[in-house]
Amino acid sequence: MGRSIRVKAPATVSNLNCGFDVLGLAINEPFDTVELELTETGRIEIDDIRGCNTLSRDPAENVVGPVLRAMVTAMGVTAGFRVIIEKGIHPGSGVGSSAASSAAAAYAANLLFDNAFSLSELVGFAMEGERLASGSAHADNVAPSLFGGITLVRSYDPLDIVRLNVPPELFVVVILPDTEVKTSVARGLLDRQLPLETAVRQWGNVGGLVAGLYSEDYELIRRSLEDFVAEPRRAGLVPGFSGMKISALASGALGAGISGSGPSVFALSRGEASARAVMESMSRVMHSERIGFKAYLSPVSSRGAGIC
Amino acid sequence: MGRSIRVKAPATVSNLNCGFDVLGLAINEPFDTVELELTETGRIEIDDIRGCNTLSRDPAENVVGPVLRAMVTAMGVTAGFRVIIEKGIHPGSGVGSSAASSAAAAYAANLLFDNAFSLSELVGFAMEGERLASGSAHADNVAPSLFGGITLVRSYDPLDIVRLNVPPELFVVVILPDTEVKTSVARGLLDRQLPLETAVRQWGNVGGLVAGLYSEDYELIRRSLEDFVAEPRRAGLVPGFSGMKISALASGALGAGISGSGPSVFALSRGEASARAVMESMSRVMHSERIGFKAYLSPVSSRGAGIC
Repeated sequence: MGRSIRVKAPATVSNLNCGFDVLGLAINEPFDTVELELTETGRIEIDDIRGCNTLSRDPAENVVGPVLRAMVTAMGVTAGFRVIIEKGIHPGSGVGSSAASSAAAAYAANLLFDNAFSLSELVGFAMEGERLASGSAHADNVAPSLFGGITLVRSYDPLDIVRLNVPPELFVVVILPDTEVKTSVARGLLDRQLPLETAVRQWGNVGGLVAGLYSEDYELIRRSLEDFVAEPRRAGLVPGFSGMKISALASGALGAGISGSGPSVFALSRGEASARAVMESMSRVMHSERIGFKAYLSPVSSRGAGIC
Repeated sequence: MGRSIRVKAPATVSNLNCGFDVLGLAINEPFDTVELELTETGRIEIDDIRGCNTLSRDPAENVVGPVLRAMVTAMGVTAGFRVIIEKGIHPGSGVGSSAASSAAAAYAANLLFDNAFSLSELVGFAMEGERLASGSAHADNVAPSLFGGITLVRSYDPLDIVRLNVPPELFVVVILPDTEVKTSVARGLLDRQLPLETAVRQWGNVGGLVAGLYSEDYELIRRSLEDFVAEPRRAGLVPGFSGMKISALASGALGAGISGSGPSVFALSRGEASARAVMESMSRVMHSERIGFKAYLSPVSSRGAGIC
């Protein structure tokens, strides 16, 4: 029997309103766990997927397959893996379910390869899982799932991940409705072209949000949490969205929006007490609209993927 | 005779590659000076424009006219002004010539109005000069000319100006060719629609540049100084541009690009010695291409508009 290791990687909220495809943050829970055993078969074998019965164990159809395959190829070895995945994050929920499994697999394999790769390189491998899951190798979930904290994908080519400062009082509420939105469908709703004026508004807010994170200016963060690109197109996909957003802001949230491509909805708050009030007001909306959901409250997680 | 005051406002470099219409910084020189005398005539009279013989003294055709008119209207008074403008900045050079006169006029009038307005409100008034000069009320030059330092226009509506951190070793070289580019012409070259992918690359860099300014990470600043929006369309308008950019980067500049809508070209460097080498290499290109020019080297100016 080969060496084995068990790694968890957290759920993540990507886009953060203004930062479509570039910004994301990690939360403490939920998370996925991946257990890897290094073998000499050259094959990737998924022995079990716990906590979810809709994902394929065929490594060509599960995100861990292309991630591990890319790493084995980059190492130039004939290694294989036996894999057990424990899904804490419901697939298609918009909090980086595929990203967390991809990140955990990449992190675990790297430990078995004696840390041959940097965290930034692991982002590149984990993106292969995103490519399989959504048809688009985006990094705004895998980067925070691996690094923790709040990350910026400054560039995709070459890949350049920046860890941003995390203001200490920033708390995150995430409401996961009991429905699924395919990232590929959500991406298809977006306009392929943006008016220059809209793009300028969006990058003004990206600059404002990053400045607010570094200067720990919560009011600047609040003003910057606007989305002129994805939310206008996707809001209709997300059950309870407008009611939750209105109630979150009325309860003092700094901002609220669609997490990734939805249907999860997130809110940022200053302080845990404020976040709790926001979570309760969002939950009331979901109860009154009779939509099943799970709710999470977390500081921005300083930890990314790591050994269990 | 009424109260009078003399104010100077600095030249500015806007856009900074990635931050089209939102980012700008102030340099120590050149600058414009505006002398205002408060009158009770209700008229704006431009008595003299020194250092330039191409600008109109008609207040309907000179940027100070709409700036002062807007402020008088906002005050609800019947005041007038006698104005003397001293142009240190050549019009149409791309370093905020109209913005500096507009900023100086707004700042001076505000002093005569006993600081009735905040600096942010003065940006709004000074934008009226930009509207006259270029047909577009942009704020990315007037904001740094008023505030000094490096500014972000997070939002135009409502107007929201953010002063960003200035890394202490950041130096600016500006080469002003002896030619003119009309901002209105340069704006007309831009695509009105951007591919989403291009917009994502641009706002990734805006986030990276702002993060680099706060974390004083000069290598991150270097990587973020890319422009996928304006430079590809405008470079051909700017004499000597590609040669200067290549030589600036080869001489160690962090980045180089078109200042505003050109024809000035700027480079950012880490440290004064590096900036000097960059200035010399850019100057050699202009000499070899037989294009007349002026060259300036400055730290980012911490001072914006102020009393002379």
